[in-house]
Amino acid sequence: MARQISDLKLGILGGGQLGRMLIQEAINYNLTTLVLDPDAEAPCKNIANKFECGSITDYDTVYNFGKKADIITIEIEKVNIEALEQLEKEGKLVFPQPRVIRLIQDKGIQKQFFKENDIPTAPFQLVHGKEDILNSIISFPYILKQRKDGYDGKGVMRINGITDIDRAFEAPSLIEELVDFEKEIAVIVARNPNGDMRTFPMVEMEFNAEANLVEFLISPSTYPENIQQKAEKIAIQIATALNITGILAVEMFITRNGDILVNELAPRPHNSGHQTIEGNYVSQFDQHLRAIFNLPLGDTRTLANSVMVNLLGEKGHDGVAKYAGLEKVMSVDGVYIHLYGKKYTKPFRKMGHVTIVDQNREKAIEKARFVQDTLKVIS
Amino acid sequence: MARQISDLKLGILGGGQLGRMLIQEAINYNLTTLVLDPDAEAPCKNIANKFECGSITDYDTVYNFGKKADIITIEIEKVNIEALEQLEKEGKLVFPQPRVIRLIQDKGIQKQFFKENDIPTAPFQLVHGKEDILNSIISFPYILKQRKDGYDGKGVMRINGITDIDRAFEAPSLIEELVDFEKEIAVIVARNPNGDMRTFPMVEMEFNAEANLVEFLISPSTYPENIQQKAEKIAIQIATALNITGILAVEMFITRNGDILVNELAPRPHNSGHQTIEGNYVSQFDQHLRAIFNLPLGDTRTLANSVMVNLLGEKGHDGVAKYAGLEKVMSVDGVYIHLYGKKYTKPFRKMGHVTIVDQNREKAIEKARFVQDTLKVIS
Repeated sequence: MARQISDLKLGILGGGQLGRMLIQEAINYNLTTLVLDPDAEAPCKNIANKFECGSITDYDTVYNFGKKADIITIEIEKVNIEALEQLEKEGKLVFPQPRVIRLIQDKGIQKQFFKENDIPTAPFQLVHGKEDILNSIISFPYILKQRKDGYDGKGVMRINGITDIDRAFEAPSLIEELVDFEKEIAVIVARNPNGDMRTFPMVEMEFNAEANLVEFLISPSTYPENIQQKAEKIAIQIATALNITGILAVEMFITRNGDILVNELAPRPHNSGHQTIEGNYVSQFDQHLRAIFNLPLGDTRTLANSVMVNLLGEKGHDGVAKYAGLEKVMSVDGVYIHLYGKKYTKPFRKMGHVTIVDQNREKAIEKARFVQDTLKVIS
Repeated sequence: MARQISDLKLGILGGGQLGRMLIQEAINYNLTTLVLDPDAEAPCKNIANKFECGSITDYDTVYNFGKKADIITIEIEKVNIEALEQLEKEGKLVFPQPRVIRLIQDKGIQKQFFKENDIPTAPFQLVHGKEDILNSIISFPYILKQRKDGYDGKGVMRINGITDIDRAFEAPSLIEELVDFEKEIAVIVARNPNGDMRTFPMVEMEFNAEANLVEFLISPSTYPENIQQKAEKIAIQIATALNITGILAVEMFITRNGDILVNELAPRPHNSGHQTIEGNYVSQFDQHLRAIFNLPLGDTRTLANSVMVNLLGEKGHDGVAKYAGLEKVMSVDGVYIHLYGKKYTKPFRKMGHVTIVDQNREKAIEKARFVQDTLKVIS
C-alpha cells in the first residue's frame, strides 16, 4: 500500500490559532504535526507533536525545520519563500506552493495577477514612495496599502487628501480606488493536486471599523443565487489560474450596483471560514488537509445558519486574559466557544471566536449580537 | 472574577480514545490537560499538555497525579478509588464522584442499586464461584458477568447449559436472565453540580456478535416517541438517584413486548455517544466538560441523522496499522474519520470510528454499510 496520511509528518509554518485549529482536525487522521513559530508561547505549543521555537522568515531555520517533515504547509504568508523553494526542489511537498505564497505575499503582484487574468478588482497603481503617491492619477479619497507584511488591517490606510500623504508608508505600496461597496463577502475554495475543486457557500462579513478586523460573519449569504454563483465562479477562476494546492480564501466586495470586485487572497485557512467547523459538513481545516494530502474533498454545504463573532481583546485591557460573561453566553443553545490559548490579551488581539448555529438565520444573528455584547476579554 | 475554566488544570485518568476526544474539545476552552495512563504510547500522549506514564490503579501514582490537577475526571472506570476519595477529602473536585465510580465498577452493586431504586433491569443473582452458579435458581440459558473489570465484551459469557459452567469465571460474578431483546439502545444524560440535566436523544446500537462490541450506531432512534421518552426518563431517574456530576451513558434493552430494561452504566463519555461530535449541536465530550466545570449544559438536539461505525482491527492482522480504503470512504459526502492514534492493530482492537451524517436516515445507513465494507484496519 502507498504511504498514507497517517504515516506522514506535517510541518506547519506558524503556530497561531489557524495552526491550532488545523491540528485539532489533524488529530482525527493520526497526523504527526511539527510546528515552527517564533513565539515560545504560541497557541500550538502544547498540542503539536513537536513544537519548535524559531523564526519563520529565516532561511536556515525554515529549511532545517522543513527537512524533518514530509509535507509542509503554512498558516501565515510571511514565511521564508527561498527555503520553501529549496525544500520543494529537494522533493518535499510544499502546499500551497512557494510560487503561490510569493505571489500572494506581495499585494502589488497579486493585483497584477488579477489584471492579467481578467479577475475583476478595483483600479490600482503601484507606488514606490511619497513622491510617486503625490503624482498618482487616482483621485482622493483612496486606499494606500503596503505591498508586503500587512495583515488584519495593519499596513492599510485611507488617504483622504494631500495632507494624509505625510503619514504614508515608506515601503513599496499600492494605491487603490476606494470601492463604494455594499458588503464584503468571501468564498473559500479548495483544490487538490488532482485538480478537484469545491467552494464553500459565500459568506457575508461585517468589519470593526476601528480595528479593521472581521468582527462578525454570516453563513450562508442571502444574496441572490446569481450573485453567489458569480462569486464562486471567480474563486474557482483564481484557484485554477494559480494552480494552487490547498485552500484559498477569496475576499471580495459587492458594489452598490451589484458588481463583484476581488479584494485580496489568503492561500490558507482564513478567518472567514471559522464558522465551517460547526456550520458546514466539512470544515475549512479538514478541507485544507484533504487538499494538501490529495484526498477527496469534503462536502462544503451548510448544516444550518451560522454566525461567527471574533473575540477581540477589549480596549484598555493589557495583561493575563479573563473571559467575562463566558457562562452567560454558554447558556445560549448553539453557541460554540473557541479560545486560542493565548495567555495575554491586548486591545483588539484575536483571543478566540464564537460560532452560533441556528436553523433560523435571524435567531442566529440575534444570539450573535448577545454574544458580542456579553462576552468580553479583559485583564 | 471567580476562577475560570481556562485557569484550571484538568487531570484525566486514562489516556485512550475517550481522553483524546475529550482533549480535542478541551482545547477550545484553553484548558490545561494532564493525563495519566500506563501505556507510554497511549492515544493522548502527544496532545495532552502533560502526559504521565503510570498506573491508574495504584494508590500513590493516582494520588500524586491528582495533586497536580484542580479537577479530576476519568475516561475508564478501572481506577484507584481510594486515592480519588482522599483527593476529594483534600478538596479536589473529582467528577464523576468516587462513590459513583465505586458503585459502577462493580456490576453486582450496580444491579442492586437498580433494584433498590426501582430501575427496571433483568432479574439477577450474585454468585461467588462455580458452586454458587450450579445452585442458581435462574434457568438456562443465562448470562454470566464478572462483577469487576469487564469491558467491551470481556468478562461476559453466555451459559447455555451445565457443561458451560466449567468455563465460568472464578471471580465474584452475577447471573442474569437472558433478555429476549429487540434492540439495544442508549441514552446519555448530563448533570452538573447545579442539578441541571439534559439527555441526548436515544440511539440504537448494533453489536458485532463475535466481538460483542458496538459496531454500528444510529442516531436518533425511530422508536415511537413514548418509548424514547420512557428511556430518557429512566436515564434522568438514574442520574438523579446517583446525584452524579458529569455524563452518564445508560445502555438499555427494548424487549419484544416494548419494555425497557437497563443493562449497564458508564459514568463518562461512551462509545454510544461518538456520533454527537458531528451529529448533534453539542458533543458528549463538550457536555462532559460543561457538566464537571458546572457550566450551562449544551443543546443535545441532533443536527441530522448520523450513523457511527467502529473501526475494529481486522481479524488475522497484528502489527503496525494501515487503513485500507480510507480514500474511497472519504470520497463519500458526510463521512468523518476519527483515528485514535494507535500505532499497532490487533483483531477487534478499537482503532478509530467513522461518523456518517446525512439528512436522510436511509442514505446515512447505506453509506455506513459502504464504510463498513470498504474501510479495513490491516497490518
